[in-house]
Amino acid sequence: MTFNVKLLVYPKEEVLDSPGKAVAGSLLSLGYSSVKNVRIGRYIQLLINSDTAEEARQQVEKMCDDLLVNSLIEEFTIISVEA
Amino acid sequence: MTFNVKLLVYPKEEVLDSPGKAVAGSLLSLGYSSVKNVRIGRYIQLLINSDTAEEARQQVEKMCDDLLVNSLIEEFTIISVEA
Repeated sequence: MTFNVKLLVYPKEEVLDSPGKAVAGSLLSLGYSSVKNVRIGRYIQLLINSDTAEEARQQVEKMCDDLLVNSLIEEFTIISVEA
Repeated sequence: MTFNVKLLVYPKEEVLDSPGKAVAGSLLSLGYSSVKNVRIGRYIQLLINSDTAEEARQQVEKMCDDLLVNSLIEEFTIISVEA
């Protein structure tokens, strides 16, 4: 079966988010004075073959450990696993 | 009031997703043969001041038009607006 796994990878709270700061600065200079903070992460969609949703989830967690997430400065959340 | 607006920005279906292709290739070379496709987008969290959630949503949609989204090749979805 093919599963569509969607996950969010984003900087840990204590980590300086330079891209986020840059975007916040640009928005302010465009006149969006209501902006207080911006944080930017990655939204990853994976199509993978697996026997069960749980196995698909576990595979993706391993992929996160191996490649997709820098655990020193990033966290991730799997938001959905859909057949 | 301060609202936390979360949105996803991702390449349109018909657009070649080079970062996604690169990650898929890396995962395959790490032995994850179950991977069929990978698409990578941005996960953006904005803290903004606004009187209402609806006004916060509209402000963010305008920010997307002005800066956050390249509408030629990208689409976006606002996934939540929380006080």
